[in-house]
Amino acid sequence: MNKKISIAIDAMGGDNAPDKTIEGVKFFLNKYKSNDDFTLKIFGEEKKIYEKLKKYNIFSNKIKIIHSSSVISDKETPLTAVKNSRNTSMWNCIKSQTEGESDISLSAGNTGVLLVISRMILKMINEVSKPALAGLWPNQKGMNVVLDLGANIECNEDNLVDFAELGSALYKSLFPKDTPLVSLLNIGSEEIKGTETLKKTYKKLNDLSNDNNFIFNGYIEGNELMDGNSNVIVTDGFTGNIALKTAEGTAKFITKNLKNALKENLLSKISLIFSFFSLKKFRNKLDPRKYNGAIFLGLNGPVVKSHGGTDSLGFYHSIDLCYKIVKGNLMHQIKHNLNNLKSDK
Amino acid sequence: MNKKISIAIDAMGGDNAPDKTIEGVKFFLNKYKSNDDFTLKIFGEEKKIYEKLKKYNIFSNKIKIIHSSSVISDKETPLTAVKNSRNTSMWNCIKSQTEGESDISLSAGNTGVLLVISRMILKMINEVSKPALAGLWPNQKGMNVVLDLGANIECNEDNLVDFAELGSALYKSLFPKDTPLVSLLNIGSEEIKGTETLKKTYKKLNDLSNDNNFIFNGYIEGNELMDGNSNVIVTDGFTGNIALKTAEGTAKFITKNLKNALKENLLSKISLIFSFFSLKKFRNKLDPRKYNGAIFLGLNGPVVKSHGGTDSLGFYHSIDLCYKIVKGNLMHQIKHNLNNLKSDK
Repeated sequence: MNKKISIAIDAMGGDNAPDKTIEGVKFFLNKYKSNDDFTLKIFGEEKKIYEKLKKYNIFSNKIKIIHSSSVISDKETPLTAVKNSRNTSMWNCIKSQTEGESDISLSAGNTGVLLVISRMILKMINEVSKPALAGLWPNQKGMNVVLDLGANIECNEDNLVDFAELGSALYKSLFPKDTPLVSLLNIGSEEIKGTETLKKTYKKLNDLSNDNNFIFNGYIEGNELMDGNSNVIVTDGFTGNIALKTAEGTAKFITKNLKNALKENLLSKISLIFSFFSLKKFRNKLDPRKYNGAIFLGLNGPVVKSHGGTDSLGFYHSIDLCYKIVKGNLMHQIKHNLNNLKSDK
Repeated sequence: MNKKISIAIDAMGGDNAPDKTIEGVKFFLNKYKSNDDFTLKIFGEEKKIYEKLKKYNIFSNKIKIIHSSSVISDKETPLTAVKNSRNTSMWNCIKSQTEGESDISLSAGNTGVLLVISRMILKMINEVSKPALAGLWPNQKGMNVVLDLGANIECNEDNLVDFAELGSALYKSLFPKDTPLVSLLNIGSEEIKGTETLKKTYKKLNDLSNDNNFIFNGYIEGNELMDGNSNVIVTDGFTGNIALKTAEGTAKFITKNLKNALKENLLSKISLIFSFFSLKKFRNKLDPRKYNGAIFLGLNGPVVKSHGGTDSLGFYHSIDLCYKIVKGNLMHQIKHNLNNLKSDK
């Protein structure tokens, strides 16, 4: 019998926790009721968690509660957290990976603190220069990986090459059949465009292309992030974060204006009845909760950060992402890619 | 009698020129038929221009044709253009500003070439360290200025402070009643976030705040670019270009999916009839042609770049922007702001 997939969940992080985290657990258990290949390890205040399990009628031998008496406060900064976070639910959650008890961790708590203590507990993979935060973006054909989304504001060419390898490993763990197409985010598609760092990265990725890890697709511009022609998009954490937030803001701006327009008068209100199902499908396809979960890559174990403000459905999607990542053998893919990279150097 | 506003138009740049540029001129003349305070100087191949004037039934004493026998080719790069662009319509158009014959230039031609030859002909204002490309973005309350959108991929704190002054002057020339609120684009709103350059810029802008040029509003993130709480948003050209293109790509992605959803089945097609007018208003409000025209700031005279792929309506909006900028005394505003900055230093 294969070892079961073990997902460590910090039940106490994010808005409205542990209510939404436990309801998310319920959705996950419902979806995979016929699967017997996983255990969810839930870290947090035992009493509160049992209360919510009762509220949501969860009785399952696939979950295990691990009591942690303290929780990381919202006011904690990455600097103070190192001192104050020991034995919190987030800390214990990640710690369980080093003891071989869990394969992956998930938290909706403070991002900065999560990044710092994950790095402290799990340590960086030797061959990796900097860890990165990767996200899943919807595109015209499905979804792609974008990294770094904000873990490193300044990156050199070696960091960006590592991100290409880490992102490709993540993509392969989620979509095993494809050899990922890697693109580099820039302000033009010509080879001469961009910073010196980007030009050096371009050369390196070009040399590494077709080594079975990925195929290098060259530069893309911001308007190509969602056209579906790239599987992995590499950028530094400053630029990636600006792009992510700009896309979020633009989406919000457009849907708000659309909503106002469609509620404007009686005729347009009637139209809403007719287009209800189509609009529902449209909303569903672009629902940000489906893409909830940023993956912290480059450590000796994966850590997933759920959006703090998401709801139980969004949190469920993060648990699902954890499950798929471990099933797809992310850590094995990463080692494979880094070995290839090493032998190419 | 006051001197008339003189707008120099390169009729030959961009897709489908001079057809769209001359039709754009027609829209402009129609809108301002009762105004007698401007002249449009149209640069390009005389024969082709007269042909189009005839096609669009334009007979006006407010236009003047200046023949230029050559046109900048699409294949020209900023490097080769310096040698090959003399006496093209774009060159002559900008050149007319140094001879006091025009107040502003407009072209839909090659951006890189336009930036290089504008800078060569008009020269930088002494007090400005780097010129910047500024754009108008729609927001929840109207529109705001974002700069730099790609003229400078690397900027220091003095460049960014200059952009704040130039952008504020532009905003004031368009909306004379407001003291502009200036924000700095970053990956978090806390003072400790971002690069060293951004932290130094923050400090400088904070010291300059309330000097009558602008009020400094602190950092904003990408999702706040369109919330309407900033009038001028300052960033380096690399980040600005990524944000601009990402916003464009996101808008395209959403509207494409929405269009598909609404054409999906009979019911949703019927709904389109009912919502036709509301959707038209929605489209109209967000029509990118209304925001067509990036303004090159920091030279001894303003140059406006129209999107190369826009149509005649988009080009009309750029002419209108030129007219408003000169009416709002942009160059006077810039000098005023730079004098204030100098006395503050």
